[in-house]
Amino acid sequence: MADARMVERNRINDFVESPAFRNAIFGIIIFNAILLGLETSPAVMSFAGGLIHFLDTACLAIFVFEIALKLYARRLRFFTNPWAVFDLFIVGVSLIPGSSGFSVLRALRILRVLRIISIAPRLRRVVEGFITALPGMGSVFLLMAIIFYIGSVMATKLFGGAFPEWFGNLGLSAYSLFQVMTLESWSMGIVRPVMEIYPLAWAFFVPFIMVTTFAVVNLLVGLIVNSMQDAHHEEDVAKTDTYRDEVLTRLEAIEAKLDRANR
Amino acid sequence: MADARMVERNRINDFVESPAFRNAIFGIIIFNAILLGLETSPAVMSFAGGLIHFLDTACLAIFVFEIALKLYARRLRFFTNPWAVFDLFIVGVSLIPGSSGFSVLRALRILRVLRIISIAPRLRRVVEGFITALPGMGSVFLLMAIIFYIGSVMATKLFGGAFPEWFGNLGLSAYSLFQVMTLESWSMGIVRPVMEIYPLAWAFFVPFIMVTTFAVVNLLVGLIVNSMQDAHHEEDVAKTDTYRDEVLTRLEAIEAKLDRANR
Amino acid sequence: MADARMVERNRINDFVESPAFRNAIFGIIIFNAILLGLETSPAVMSFAGGLIHFLDTACLAIFVFEIALKLYARRLRFFTNPWAVFDLFIVGVSLIPGSSGFSVLRALRILRVLRIISIAPRLRRVVEGFITALPGMGSVFLLMAIIFYIGSVMATKLFGGAFPEWFGNLGLSAYSLFQVMTLESWSMGIVRPVMEIYPLAWAFFVPFIMVTTFAVVNLLVGLIVNSMQDAHHEEDVAKTDTYRDEVLTRLEAIEAKLDRANR
Amino acid sequence: MADARMVERNRINDFVESPAFRNAIFGIIIFNAILLGLETSPAVMSFAGGLIHFLDTACLAIFVFEIALKLYARRLRFFTNPWAVFDLFIVGVSLIPGSSGFSVLRALRILRVLRIISIAPRLRRVVEGFITALPGMGSVFLLMAIIFYIGSVMATKLFGGAFPEWFGNLGLSAYSLFQVMTLESWSMGIVRPVMEIYPLAWAFFVPFIMVTTFAVVNLLVGLIVNSMQDAHHEEDVAKTDTYRDEVLTRLEAIEAKLDRANR
Repeated sequence: MADARMVERNRINDFVESPAFRNAIFGIIIFNAILLGLETSPAVMSFAGGLIHFLDTACLAIFVFEIALKLYARRLRFFTNPWAVFDLFIVGVSLIPGSSGFSVLRALRILRVLRIISIAPRLRRVVEGFITALPGMGSVFLLMAIIFYIGSVMATKLFGGAFPEWFGNLGLSAYSLFQVMTLESWSMGIVRPVMEIYPLAWAFFVPFIMVTTFAVVNLLVGLIVNSMQDAHHEEDVAKTDTYRDEVLTRLEAIEAKLDRANR
Repeated sequence: MADARMVERNRINDFVESPAFRNAIFGIIIFNAILLGLETSPAVMSFAGGLIHFLDTACLAIFVFEIALKLYARRLRFFTNPWAVFDLFIVGVSLIPGSSGFSVLRALRILRVLRIISIAPRLRRVVEGFITALPGMGSVFLLMAIIFYIGSVMATKLFGGAFPEWFGNLGLSAYSLFQVMTLESWSMGIVRPVMEIYPLAWAFFVPFIMVTTFAVVNLLVGLIVNSMQDAHHEEDVAKTDTYRDEVLTRLEAIEAKLDRANR
Repeated sequence: MADARMVERNRINDFVESPAFRNAIFGIIIFNAILLGLETSPAVMSFAGGLIHFLDTACLAIFVFEIALKLYARRLRFFTNPWAVFDLFIVGVSLIPGSSGFSVLRALRILRVLRIISIAPRLRRVVEGFITALPGMGSVFLLMAIIFYIGSVMATKLFGGAFPEWFGNLGLSAYSLFQVMTLESWSMGIVRPVMEIYPLAWAFFVPFIMVTTFAVVNLLVGLIVNSMQDAHHEEDVAKTDTYRDEVLTRLEAIEAKLDRANR
Repeated sequence: MADARMVERNRINDFVESPAFRNAIFGIIIFNAILLGLETSPAVMSFAGGLIHFLDTACLAIFVFEIALKLYARRLRFFTNPWAVFDLFIVGVSLIPGSSGFSVLRALRILRVLRIISIAPRLRRVVEGFITALPGMGSVFLLMAIIFYIGSVMATKLFGGAFPEWFGNLGLSAYSLFQVMTLESWSMGIVRPVMEIYPLAWAFFVPFIMVTTFAVVNLLVGLIVNSMQDAHHEEDVAKTDTYRDEVLTRLEAIEAKLDRANR
């Protein structure tokens, strides 16, 4: 009995991993993406809103069925694959009843299109590349967070009173400093008006820009150096090492033979 | 008879590929570029508009004649050279009757100046370098397109009602998000006004900026790593490999000789 | 007697360098950072201002005690560690009586959070990496300073009369040119208005942008090349050198043995 | 007689190349830079304007005398050193009578501070590094010039009528396109207003931004790859080559000796 279940599970697993099934899901994701795009057009919705909603629900049903199949086939092993968990989460978000006025939840349904990444291997590799680059940048990110926290506290204390809209509390200050870091209207929009009241404000903002820009540049440099070495080394170093080992063993053999000849 | 044609074709081909012909065409392109520049000046046009139009038409006639010669000489082989097809396309655009009010088509005639790229080998190499860099960036471009599509649908659903000018439909949203990605007035111009109605709008835009900027940075890093390896490897690796092969064959020969001596 | 002191000093030194002490200080820094963040909220301050001020003073007292301990234990050796001097300076700033209306000094107290860098080894290494990158950029920085000085003098002389707000004196000009270098509103905000009075102003600003941007790009390139070589060489080169030395000594040994055999 | 002159010339040459003379000129350049900075302050000028003008003229006289000495000592060889020609040009500009209302010429006198680059060897090396990087970027620059010319002609023809202030003639268009390339207010300031009249204007500007940004990125990549290879190769490759040559000659020698032994 348990065996029969096992066999069935394996058969279902083979089915959900077959290229045909994969391609079908791929097609449905694309079709669903187009549907969700059409939903943004009032003209189309007034003409065929019911049909589109129906097809969208059908797509969602297929996704739920697909994930249910995978869950049944793989059971707990399902959760060892982060991409499967990602799919589960994205489809789960769409199941939260969003009709009750939460337009944000309805808007999140478009995130289903991200499933295309978990299905297309090339896109998956790009995203995995992005994610593996993150840990190496952890320290710099932490440093940036500290700089932003310090900057926000200082800006709130110094300029919060006169410019409550920009620096009224820690959150507003952090947002304004993020804007300043991206160099968007930092001078004409923020610092020049602030300098009209606090003439020395530049002494806070100009160093802030320099430090954060320098940190971002170092992030970039770190990324380049890392991916350069990854690309460089693995293959090359392995090849060089085997070559060197061979040369040295051969030289040792020659010396041994010479010693025997000399004896 | 067919032979005579063949000979004639080869002679014409030699002619259109001769440096003298090339330089003449090169000069005409430059001359035509100047003419098209002068056309933008109302003062010059009121003074010598007829002459300039006549000379421009003459240049176009020469280009048409040149391409006709090449087509006659190379026949279908003409279409195997992508730069020749590029020339054909650019000259073809100029032949569409643009006098009938389509100022856009008249403006496109300046694209003829691009023919300078297909004639100057150094510029051609630069552009070919650009184009060979594109396929390696395909996956990241695709990812960006997906992010932009998702972002546009979300922005249209969330902010389209209150800001129809910026996020009224998918096209407007995509344009506005492109502007946000280039960091142009993203905060003072777009996000701060939006936040006055949707205070949590930053939770959409700030991650969007971070993700797209990170993707662009990765494109850049990929470009650098690729061209670094291209520059590095080809020569170096070949040299190293021949050296290694020689060392190993010599070592083998020495061992063989020693074995013979020991025997 | 002197010996007893020495022993005591060593015991205190062991204590302040113990992981437990380190972690306690680490926790107090975090706790203090949260306190200083809460201080920015008028609501929290009206509710528990007295308590927060008391706890903040307690944190400061602990920091003073900690540094006093270190100073007692290490004496002049204390000043050989730049991070200890950094801690001393930051805590010292907080001791300046800032209650007397100098809101800037009160705002500087948040800099205490920077002590987290001197305590966490990973952050310390990142900052040390930043600092070691600076000397290599010294010449380019000096060049930028010269360009900015020349640019400021020229801008003040040329545009100071008509635009006193932007170019009224050397300081204002330097600030405006820094803004132009970061490309923030350089055209719509600064150069277009200036060009309405001095139509040739672009001949000053466009080259200024090109030169400073090019210098910044070269800084970036220098940084990348440097850290690439650091990452590359040290290990690799050492390994390659030992390998090469071994090959050559073995070859020499073989030749020597052959000479003996031939004799 | 000619010999005596020769001796005198050599003596003068030794003098102008002595460290003491160099340092004196260095000091005068710095002093002159400060004077020219003070000249921008109306307060200082009303107080000590006469003195500053006198000292400035004295500095200029010293520079003229210095260059005259070098010209006398080195004669035509003077012109083989590009930095000497640079000094001559900069000092020459200051000699043009600028008192006659040409404030631009008076402003150019600050360029004398650039002489500090020709005197300080480290700065000189940085600038020479910049200049040697330029030829490798020639093709991309030429391509950018072609793109800008084509873009300017098209923008003038398409948008010149409705937006004469931005695209009224080739020069204005080139300036506006440069602004667009630097991403400064490209959307809110330029393209959105243009799109109100020509809704398809984005189809011109967005590709323009992508192409020019991509070209700039390729310039940057080229710079990085070039300086990476410069830094990398020269030393390393030489060392590797000598090592390889030694290994191969030794292997040949061993084989020859073995052949002799076997015979």
